[in-house]
Amino acid sequence: MALGDSRLYHGLFGDAGTACHFTDAAEIAAMLAVEAALAAAQSDQGLIPAGAAAAIGRACERAAITPAALAEATARNGVPVPALVDALRAEMTAAGDGAASSYVHWGATSQDIIDSALMLRLVPVIALWQGRLERLTRGLGALARAHAELPMAARSYGQVATPTSFGATVAGWGAPILRHRARLDRLVPGLMVVSLGGASGTLAAMGPQGGAVRAALARRLGLGDPGQSWHNARDGLAEFAGWMAGLAGSLGKIAEDLILLAQSGIAEVRISGGGGSSTMPQKENPVSPAVLLAEARRIIALAGLMQGAAIHRQNRDGAAWFVEWQTLPELCVSLGAALERAADLCPRIAPDPGRMAAALAADGGLAHAEALVFALAARMPRPEAQARVAALCREAASGGGSLAALAARDFPHADWPETDWPGSGWPGSGWPETDWTTLLSGSAGLGDAAGQARRFADEADPAGATLDPAPDSAP
Amino acid sequence: MALGDSRLYHGLFGDAGTACHFTDAAEIAAMLAVEAALAAAQSDQGLIPAGAAAAIGRACERAAITPAALAEATARNGVPVPALVDALRAEMTAAGDGAASSYVHWGATSQDIIDSALMLRLVPVIALWQGRLERLTRGLGALARAHAELPMAARSYGQVATPTSFGATVAGWGAPILRHRARLDRLVPGLMVVSLGGASGTLAAMGPQGGAVRAALARRLGLGDPGQSWHNARDGLAEFAGWMAGLAGSLGKIAEDLILLAQSGIAEVRISGGGGSSTMPQKENPVSPAVLLAEARRIIALAGLMQGAAIHRQNRDGAAWFVEWQTLPELCVSLGAALERAADLCPRIAPDPGRMAAALAADGGLAHAEALVFALAARMPRPEAQARVAALCREAASGGGSLAALAARDFPHADWPETDWPGSGWPGSGWPETDWTTLLSGSAGLGDAAGQARRFADEADPAGATLDPAPDSAP
Amino acid sequence: MALGDSRLYHGLFGDAGTACHFTDAAEIAAMLAVEAALAAAQSDQGLIPAGAAAAIGRACERAAITPAALAEATARNGVPVPALVDALRAEMTAAGDGAASSYVHWGATSQDIIDSALMLRLVPVIALWQGRLERLTRGLGALARAHAELPMAARSYGQVATPTSFGATVAGWGAPILRHRARLDRLVPGLMVVSLGGASGTLAAMGPQGGAVRAALARRLGLGDPGQSWHNARDGLAEFAGWMAGLAGSLGKIAEDLILLAQSGIAEVRISGGGGSSTMPQKENPVSPAVLLAEARRIIALAGLMQGAAIHRQNRDGAAWFVEWQTLPELCVSLGAALERAADLCPRIAPDPGRMAAALAADGGLAHAEALVFALAARMPRPEAQARVAALCREAASGGGSLAALAARDFPHADWPETDWPGSGWPGSGWPETDWTTLLSGSAGLGDAAGQARRFADEADPAGATLDPAPDSAP
Amino acid sequence: MALGDSRLYHGLFGDAGTACHFTDAAEIAAMLAVEAALAAAQSDQGLIPAGAAAAIGRACERAAITPAALAEATARNGVPVPALVDALRAEMTAAGDGAASSYVHWGATSQDIIDSALMLRLVPVIALWQGRLERLTRGLGALARAHAELPMAARSYGQVATPTSFGATVAGWGAPILRHRARLDRLVPGLMVVSLGGASGTLAAMGPQGGAVRAALARRLGLGDPGQSWHNARDGLAEFAGWMAGLAGSLGKIAEDLILLAQSGIAEVRISGGGGSSTMPQKENPVSPAVLLAEARRIIALAGLMQGAAIHRQNRDGAAWFVEWQTLPELCVSLGAALERAADLCPRIAPDPGRMAAALAADGGLAHAEALVFALAARMPRPEAQARVAALCREAASGGGSLAALAARDFPHADWPETDWPGSGWPGSGWPETDWTTLLSGSAGLGDAAGQARRFADEADPAGATLDPAPDSAP
Repeated sequence: MALGDSRLYHGLFGDAGTACHFTDAAEIAAMLAVEAALAAAQSDQGLIPAGAAAAIGRACERAAITPAALAEATARNGVPVPALVDALRAEMTAAGDGAASSYVHWGATSQDIIDSALMLRLVPVIALWQGRLERLTRGLGALARAHAELPMAARSYGQVATPTSFGATVAGWGAPILRHRARLDRLVPGLMVVSLGGASGTLAAMGPQGGAVRAALARRLGLGDPGQSWHNARDGLAEFAGWMAGLAGSLGKIAEDLILLAQSGIAEVRISGGGGSSTMPQKENPVSPAVLLAEARRIIALAGLMQGAAIHRQNRDGAAWFVEWQTLPELCVSLGAALERAADLCPRIAPDPGRMAAALAADGGLAHAEALVFALAARMPRPEAQARVAALCREAASGGGSLAALAARDFPHADWPETDWPGSGWPGSGWPETDWTTLLSGSAGLGDAAGQARRFADEADPAGATLDPAPDSAP
Repeated sequence: MALGDSRLYHGLFGDAGTACHFTDAAEIAAMLAVEAALAAAQSDQGLIPAGAAAAIGRACERAAITPAALAEATARNGVPVPALVDALRAEMTAAGDGAASSYVHWGATSQDIIDSALMLRLVPVIALWQGRLERLTRGLGALARAHAELPMAARSYGQVATPTSFGATVAGWGAPILRHRARLDRLVPGLMVVSLGGASGTLAAMGPQGGAVRAALARRLGLGDPGQSWHNARDGLAEFAGWMAGLAGSLGKIAEDLILLAQSGIAEVRISGGGGSSTMPQKENPVSPAVLLAEARRIIALAGLMQGAAIHRQNRDGAAWFVEWQTLPELCVSLGAALERAADLCPRIAPDPGRMAAALAADGGLAHAEALVFALAARMPRPEAQARVAALCREAASGGGSLAALAARDFPHADWPETDWPGSGWPGSGWPETDWTTLLSGSAGLGDAAGQARRFADEADPAGATLDPAPDSAP
Repeated sequence: MALGDSRLYHGLFGDAGTACHFTDAAEIAAMLAVEAALAAAQSDQGLIPAGAAAAIGRACERAAITPAALAEATARNGVPVPALVDALRAEMTAAGDGAASSYVHWGATSQDIIDSALMLRLVPVIALWQGRLERLTRGLGALARAHAELPMAARSYGQVATPTSFGATVAGWGAPILRHRARLDRLVPGLMVVSLGGASGTLAAMGPQGGAVRAALARRLGLGDPGQSWHNARDGLAEFAGWMAGLAGSLGKIAEDLILLAQSGIAEVRISGGGGSSTMPQKENPVSPAVLLAEARRIIALAGLMQGAAIHRQNRDGAAWFVEWQTLPELCVSLGAALERAADLCPRIAPDPGRMAAALAADGGLAHAEALVFALAARMPRPEAQARVAALCREAASGGGSLAALAARDFPHADWPETDWPGSGWPGSGWPETDWTTLLSGSAGLGDAAGQARRFADEADPAGATLDPAPDSAP
Repeated sequence: MALGDSRLYHGLFGDAGTACHFTDAAEIAAMLAVEAALAAAQSDQGLIPAGAAAAIGRACERAAITPAALAEATARNGVPVPALVDALRAEMTAAGDGAASSYVHWGATSQDIIDSALMLRLVPVIALWQGRLERLTRGLGALARAHAELPMAARSYGQVATPTSFGATVAGWGAPILRHRARLDRLVPGLMVVSLGGASGTLAAMGPQGGAVRAALARRLGLGDPGQSWHNARDGLAEFAGWMAGLAGSLGKIAEDLILLAQSGIAEVRISGGGGSSTMPQKENPVSPAVLLAEARRIIALAGLMQGAAIHRQNRDGAAWFVEWQTLPELCVSLGAALERAADLCPRIAPDPGRMAAALAADGGLAHAEALVFALAARMPRPEAQARVAALCREAASGGGSLAALAARDFPHADWPETDWPGSGWPGSGWPETDWTTLLSGSAGLGDAAGQARRFADEADPAGATLDPAPDSAP
């Protein structure tokens, strides 16, 4: 019933690259790898005979243990490890290594194996995501660079505010993604650690060598050594979930903006590859952003479940742990799918300079009202400037002409006396010479927008190696 | 990656009875059933030719449309219906019914088909759950009846409070379940309705007969007629999700109580069939309650996602709808699994009268302190009684003897003068004759506990048909 | 730190009408009312002397117990009741009723008083909300009636779909609100019940009269008698929270639609009283819908906390109960504020018929594409009609003229032969005589939209007593 | 209605130290500080006259702007800044600085002021929390050191597992807190940044000096310079919320363990200062851990709201921002209160060595079963050892004597032949000489528990400066 696994819906919600690490087979293989490495590490430390470790290692490699073989005992025990150990011993006994089979899972507990096997599988998952994060940020970098100077209306509360550029908008999408990448790099060392604590976290059954065994196990598995048990200290997983929720928020923001920019009547961005309707021939729905937004909401909710599961009672809390079991795979697949979808979207995003220009010019060019205020403020008190511009805005919005034309009418150069008004700064200082149309239309008033776009592009796509989208033609 | 679907974990988290209605195949079958019924309903109303409806009906019955055949178009369109309609038309054309195929999906939109097909599948899901709810309440009823008078300590904040009975405890678990059953009965008629609105909810392409078609479709599918479109009015599903969250809370409460009662050191309830450990031979873990609690937490979180998806923008909101698609099947499987597990637990719950009696007698029988206060309050101001009993409790708790013995020491019958203290009510009125041991130990002070247990049992298991657990032997 | 209580932000997030029932003073007054009614009920049943009940009643009426007086003990005990009872006894002793003070809180526990006092305060809260719900639905009803036939574009995935009417859109907002009202009416009797169980829910300290006392208490307080204790059965509150989450979803949907309709570039609805900017003179932000949406999201999250708190351990679970204490007042104030805001919005909503007409005519009138398909389907296979219309849509969207003009060009009446195509139903049957412009523009294709609007208006505002907004002028 | 603000409940849920930074007055003061620093920074860059900046600075210092004065305009505009700027200008005009008042809020937007003012207030909030975190970890360090070798039973699924020490248990609580401290240190630099973007994030109204002004503003306010606008990039706040949720999980875990350890019937920990009941004289409820757990759940839910608000639409999203406004103060107060409560709890926690020893010895000492398996495994296959110990456990649990006695009966030293079984490692190698009672009771089998406790103590309380709790006496 997980739509990502469904044959019908896989293309909408699935992520095979992530999901393949959360199958039964992948988990069993990882658990066997942990048991083998544990035996080898214990042999390193003289805790079990070298021959036993070798025999265990061979058995873990060749054992063909199916999920079905473990299912019934797993349902009873709540963990698959007792049945896995039994199956491994049976395999060894059949191969004449019965004596050595006593050393399987020596001094470990189920949670050591399951948590270590989880971490082993998160390694490739995170590597996969890092690649997608890089692809996404490079894609956004290329978009930002190509459209650094393409004027568009910024909107707050859904209302046209002042001009910005499409490149700056894209930079605003991408900057948080760069930060999430850096956050991931910072949290990975603390997350990707082996778990080895024995029944109650004290490694009692391994004697004084316990700590050395844990260190050796970590080395053999390519994971970190946490220096302690963490059966019931789930803060690393909670941090990971929090990171996913944060990334989801930033991806959801991109999705929302795309949905809004692609709306009929706005249409400043076209997303190629939209979906058709069963009854309306004209429809081209922005399916990808909608899926991305849905995944973002889902990820944030599931992350809350993971964070709640960090309230883990005593030395092992079945309920809290089961919540993690159910949630983490779904969370990872949703995040992987969202990342893949976001990265795929980048080259499909095409801004429409004409529509963007039209929005800036709409209602007489109200997007330039703030610029007019600051120009006037060089020659009159700003509250007065604000009030006069507000009046002109009402006139323009009711069809009285463009703000530029109205400004030219009311503030002709010759007629406006030099004053001793202390305002001298930018941008009004040159006002008497100002060409109102230049100041209040087209690509005027972009401020630092292009700079923001380019700085982001330089950081996100440093070599500029990504094939740039076609540059903007004039609107 | 949904553990309920996993071969390895199905026995812990799966629910085949519910999940079978959320497979691709079940959804395709239900969508075909809706298309067939729609054609028939439209033929009833003279909107399409009867022959076309018959041909569509035949095609829907025999068409073997696989999820794989629809997958690619579904990924592109965001909905499976355009591809389904194409496949159905191809099927009809191949069968020589090409002309009639024009009438497939006449005037409907994808959402009509998908939402109606969902409701069609919820009918058996809810019927299944109603059976489980009845099994659960009958199981709890039998437990409550059998142990109506078995004394145990009530606990607040984890501390022994006053006596109650195990039957009353079980009645406290079951009474909310009875109410949730009644709530389900109340919400089902509003939930189980057909969806038919056409592209934008106006049924424009069906002309004046639209409403009649919707009514006829409802009759043919055995669903209700909502009298209007509900593409973007998701309050019914939000109410359903809220119901699931409420039920989950009540199931989670049972799970928590069982985990606490089964703890080492408390052990007042034994749950047969517990799980073993990979390293500790003595362990018998209460796996079932832990799974039940995990499902309860999961259900509540997923229900929040569904409720949030009721913020459905405009006439169709892809993101909100996708959230529902992903969430509802998981929510239903978790709820179904939780119900099944709870019902299965009932006959496995065995109270231990000896342990319960020991808890009541522990620390000198402090559970009876309130009863002593009210007895004394017949002869002295209650604040004074409260203070004197508090002192005796400290003495008893530090090993000074049982509360009953201390009461007999301090309040011997002969020595205590008749007073004109206005207290005359129960239970202190007979105090001078009171046998403190009878009043302050054993099964004393149960109040209405047995009555509560029996009233619940009578309502939950009216015929008493459920095989009662073995009655309590004396502790 | 609750912004609803802040002097600065009260006007955005506050709701004095709801909040006044959740002050310390209101809680203390309600607890005193419960203690007084409990004593009276116990006197009714002969459990305590009539004189004592009278004295307690007098003391509860005149006692001026301040929150400050109870604060320190409340922090220590986790509940205010022990300190309240002490203060009440001190009051009575000072008034010479010391002996009677023994009967204060006779056989009750803190939770009985607190939960009953909560219910007592929810009565006026819910009455207040019912008034607001009625005002909201009447306001929506008047809007729906006035604009029942005002054509506008329905949108799915943010894309223009087919025509609908503004009245039908409003009916789509309002129908769920009517259902939420009915749901509230259904749940109130089960929610508004007295709590009386004594220390552990058995009413042990009240003897056999316990049930009769509870019934009498309920009568005296104007609440229902639940027939049992519900200290740890929080399903009623969870249901209430679920209802709030459901209503919030439907209110949030209205808010989202208003934000989208009010966007610059769409501007099909104007919401009077928008907010200004600190730097942009032209801005008129839709603050009210944004606040409404924020409250909706908040309510849904807080409702999840309440639902989670129904996992209430044993006979009293401090943590679960504290979660309720903190959450329910905030939840109620947010819901009350959201309801008030939504009701206030109705008369401030003004549709712009011209902008609506423009959206329908945009891109050559693609909103009418489905209607053209069904018209053509009377004379050709629907897949062919769908393909031909899709081609015309592309032509129209790229500036090739309106869909109506293109249809007239390609499907002139004279040239199109009568066929034996079985399509005979509506709306294509008259096609050879069809005036394409009439069929494919203006107010064509509204289907049942006006009917939906009027039926909703009749239900929501039956007497039509609400002053209707000005009727639409022609666009 | 926020209980933390309530006079009655402040002692349970309030945190004055945190809350004082979220009052109206604190916000207005911080906004004025930002306006003053902005003017100064702009004067530094030659953007506005130095005299104007000085006049603005003076006005911000002396202005007594009350929340009430801004309330009405705030309710209308959705933000307090327009009214604040007006009030500031009025103040300046009244003081004869009317001309300079034109330069107030030059080129900034409301969000610049509000977000920067928020960060300014988070600085002391986080400093306060860092102090509490240190107090908490030192308190836990002292507890862990004092009880490093105090044996107690570890519990998984609520069942006794194997021995550990109370110090190791405390180290398990504290290690995540140390990691959360380090995480906070890592996230603070990215979080504590100034916001300055102007109307749409481009700083257009400040001309080319915009970036320099932002840097100067950051220096003046003691915040970081983010190098870009972040009006709609809320990942920093989402990360902060995620951190709070993670810390809450770890605090909630401590609370849960304390509640469980303090239960009647377990009573291995006594928490001084428990709460009393209104009717049960013996009760001493663990109120503090219950409040701590409630706060943890609340924090996790509220953090989810903050993370969801990172889906921030376009350049300013009123709804998303309002969600942050409402949530962050509540979240911070709950986290601050939780930290304070946790730190206060440390010195109130007293383990009971006798009860801990009793739990280890209960049921014949089943906690030592794993140790017996590993001892036997030196002389027989481990599966056989496991099976034989399981049988002895059943015998012991049904009253057949202690596991040590049964082991001595079945595995007397003399009778057990030397074998060539390859098992030679710890702990069984010396088995024939083993004294079973020493191996299987008392403080045996603690493994690395004491080491874990001491290593944590050394890190958390390095100087050992914290007054240690009294050392354990022998049980």
